[in-house]
Amino acid sequence: MHTIKDKAKLLTRVRRIQGQAGALEKLLAEDQDCTAVLQQIAAIRGAVNGLMAAVIEGHLVDHLVEESDGDKRQQEAAVMLQVIKSYLK
Amino acid sequence: MHTIKDKAKLLTRVRRIQGQAGALEKLLAEDQDCTAVLQQIAAIRGAVNGLMAAVIEGHLVDHLVEESDGDKRQQEAAVMLQVIKSYLK
Amino acid sequence: MHTIKDKAKLLTRVRRIQGQAGALEKLLAEDQDCTAVLQQIAAIRGAVNGLMAAVIEGHLVDHLVEESDGDKRQQEAAVMLQVIKSYLK
Amino acid sequence: MHTIKDKAKLLTRVRRIQGQAGALEKLLAEDQDCTAVLQQIAAIRGAVNGLMAAVIEGHLVDHLVEESDGDKRQQEAAVMLQVIKSYLK
Repeated sequence: MHTIKDKAKLLTRVRRIQGQAGALEKLLAEDQDCTAVLQQIAAIRGAVNGLMAAVIEGHLVDHLVEESDGDKRQQEAAVMLQVIKSYLK
Repeated sequence: MHTIKDKAKLLTRVRRIQGQAGALEKLLAEDQDCTAVLQQIAAIRGAVNGLMAAVIEGHLVDHLVEESDGDKRQQEAAVMLQVIKSYLK
Repeated sequence: MHTIKDKAKLLTRVRRIQGQAGALEKLLAEDQDCTAVLQQIAAIRGAVNGLMAAVIEGHLVDHLVEESDGDKRQQEAAVMLQVIKSYLK
Repeated sequence: MHTIKDKAKLLTRVRRIQGQAGALEKLLAEDQDCTAVLQQIAAIRGAVNGLMAAVIEGHLVDHLVEESDGDKRQQEAAVMLQVIKSYLK
């Protein structure tokens, strides 16, 4: 499965997001300027979108391109469509 | 192909967007309030996202779930990934 | 009002979107490849986002930065917040 | 400043995101199903968007509606526009 194959890369991305969220917590706790807060949230959003793109790509390849069983492809396509539609609201 | 199979439904969606764009043109040409302009653009964005969701769904089913040739699935997955990534910037 | 001041520029953007929607209609009517359809919808989405960015910028300057009446600023901020939140779902 | 006034509420949101990111790390580390991974990333994205909406709303009110100095409003509008445009790519 792609999330196992790519585990190290994906965990690096997740830990970066955790680091960013920790820095955001510090900005708020220390009453830092709201401009820095806004920009830090935008940075986290970018990192989360990057992580989503990486997992969707892996999902497409593993479960739709390289999967020979049509029924399995159908199940996995439904999962992906649900996530994609959350971006298309 | 899904865009042929779903042609009537998709054309209805496109013509709705054309109608909304025409109404937006009228709002601007007649110096209408900018609140109405903002809300009309948001409505067009929603309609375009709905159209994209419909075509992506058809593409997933036609070219990835129901396509038995792995090489063809690979080509079509690349097309879809490019579009999805434009939403994940 | 910014949508009057920027009318020519905004109408040019709207007419470009109308042209793109017309081209999309043609792609569908002529049973063209769905890859071209997907990419054309993505192009329209980009143009609509560009139009929204231009109008939001004008709205911010006209109704929030340069508006001296606090009550009016409050009304216009509410309009803008509603549009921004539609992007943050 | 709004991020100080709303500090407790905002910190609660940030800590929720940290918790979600921790749960995502666990899903990956334990080789859980990629469907759960996709859905967890979508949940984090929703939480980050909710946090951004809350901070943008506070920024609008504090720095644009209730700020009587036009020059200060101009600086703060530029910050906000930069963040909004990152959503309009």
